[in-house]
Amino acid sequence: MSGEFALIADLFSGHDHAPGIALGVGDDCALIRLHGRKCLAVTTDTMVEGRHFFPGTDPYYLGWRALAVNLSDLAAMGARPYCCTMSLTLPDGSREFLDPFAQGFFDLACQEGVALIGGNMSRGPLSITIEAFGKVREDRAMRRSGAHPGDNIYVTGGLGTCGLYVKAGQGEIELSPELSERCYKHSFILESRTAFARKLSRWCSCAVDISDGIVGDLRHILKQSKVGAQLHLDQLPLAAVLDCSESAEKLTFRQRCEIAAYGGCDYELLFTLPAHSREEEHMCTLAWKHKVPVSRVGTIVRAEDSAGADPLQLYFEGRPVPCEQAFEHF
Amino acid sequence: MSGEFALIADLFSGHDHAPGIALGVGDDCALIRLHGRKCLAVTTDTMVEGRHFFPGTDPYYLGWRALAVNLSDLAAMGARPYCCTMSLTLPDGSREFLDPFAQGFFDLACQEGVALIGGNMSRGPLSITIEAFGKVREDRAMRRSGAHPGDNIYVTGGLGTCGLYVKAGQGEIELSPELSERCYKHSFILESRTAFARKLSRWCSCAVDISDGIVGDLRHILKQSKVGAQLHLDQLPLAAVLDCSESAEKLTFRQRCEIAAYGGCDYELLFTLPAHSREEEHMCTLAWKHKVPVSRVGTIVRAEDSAGADPLQLYFEGRPVPCEQAFEHF
Repeated sequence: MSGEFALIADLFSGHDHAPGIALGVGDDCALIRLHGRKCLAVTTDTMVEGRHFFPGTDPYYLGWRALAVNLSDLAAMGARPYCCTMSLTLPDGSREFLDPFAQGFFDLACQEGVALIGGNMSRGPLSITIEAFGKVREDRAMRRSGAHPGDNIYVTGGLGTCGLYVKAGQGEIELSPELSERCYKHSFILESRTAFARKLSRWCSCAVDISDGIVGDLRHILKQSKVGAQLHLDQLPLAAVLDCSESAEKLTFRQRCEIAAYGGCDYELLFTLPAHSREEEHMCTLAWKHKVPVSRVGTIVRAEDSAGADPLQLYFEGRPVPCEQAFEHF
Repeated sequence: MSGEFALIADLFSGHDHAPGIALGVGDDCALIRLHGRKCLAVTTDTMVEGRHFFPGTDPYYLGWRALAVNLSDLAAMGARPYCCTMSLTLPDGSREFLDPFAQGFFDLACQEGVALIGGNMSRGPLSITIEAFGKVREDRAMRRSGAHPGDNIYVTGGLGTCGLYVKAGQGEIELSPELSERCYKHSFILESRTAFARKLSRWCSCAVDISDGIVGDLRHILKQSKVGAQLHLDQLPLAAVLDCSESAEKLTFRQRCEIAAYGGCDYELLFTLPAHSREEEHMCTLAWKHKVPVSRVGTIVRAEDSAGADPLQLYFEGRPVPCEQAFEHF
């Protein structure tokens, strides 16, 4: 459990019961009942300058990403994006910032059919909080608690773009200006998985979005589903920037897999499905139709199988490897 | 129109249409239809250190006020408080801050029956964003657009506590430590008007919460209801700290009325009702039952009556006085 979650769980949980609240604290979204089985999925995410992005980042990218990270939470529940509110804290009301920021935000909002129904603007250090709302049937909402032993673990897209970008920013590796630019763009202009996820939710009961790195977010599933997992680092789908010749020459395969495993901020979808099932077949067809790459990266096992040890067992080329600490936002 | 609203209106409005959105940008809350006439009222407010409170403010006070300012928006719509999410940005995860902060927050949340259903924690400069949800019938929601010529203008409680505190902080006046302490506490431990407002909404169609000073917020009503108003500064209810002998000796009556008019951050309720009506009688009984002081402070007039001049006409002791600029958060 990351520091962020430990703090929230400790102090701010246990106060989420009320009539009509189908799901409270602890999943990708909370669920408020609308009528019948229809629910409003609610999520919020904040981006703070200096923590989630470097000063001087293209405002267009910020506008896009501020909404995208929330859509990723909606996708993880299988919810159809609906509307949102925006709380913007800015050092000044400069149009130089606000115009491209709004453009980036609305480009994604229009693409996803998200209305902006309210908000708030304050003066202060740059930070953006979006609260996003989606619609989902209560019985279809994918939850962190829905994994079962024998399930296969799947992940969409490629992992490690943001991880590579951060490593370059910290001076641990050097990237060409062109590769650096690609990482930069891909870290902000995130691809939406909402359409795929909505349909996936017909057969899939367990998903989480990968914001803290796949290792960290898989742990949320293990904890809430009370299961263990075997994750194969060498089967993780590497982001294109990690797989290109330039990175490949500078980094070993294992290093690249580790960046994909621990990098964070991928905002891809992790989900589980019973192995060799009809659901898996449906999912493959769906992924093909939506042009969403999907990779099998491991297996859910019984928690007892880990015999008191870490319920998450990592493997690289068939051999067990120790688990590094998960990426932490906070 | 304050700078805050001008910016929002310009760039972020006009994107609030979607099926089921009964009310979008521009009122105290947005309204999302639940079923039948029942709506979810949605509002968000941010408190930034250095802008909305001084560094070193008692965390208990911050926890209380962060929720209270949102409840004030729910009250302005006549909505019953329901649940909320919290996005907290903190320089560190210190328990010294978080424990009393959570206590202040939950003390008010319990009192008002508000569940905390989700949230988010980030590292960065101290700032707190609450998104609050209430329930209200669509036909009962009080709106800024609901005022009519001939209505009387009413305000709850007393005005000017925060205005006096800010003036003292800026060195414009000197307060005794005891009076300063009272101002400080009252600026944060705001009284809730939700119970009164919910019942008021049976007969009242127009309300706004006073966050930018009564003059500034009354302008929102005038604009959206397309009316004018006569406001009597000498009839404004002065907060107890403004009315006490210590302040009274240092400030003229007119100065005190002006602090009440322009001070900001009162989080009281401004509403209108037809003059000499049964609705007024009901409201008086209700105010008495709920022990909410209510004062009549002016009259709604036709916009044309201001004949091209400012639709808001201010009076002091029967004579017209010029309007100072409204307090601005942004």
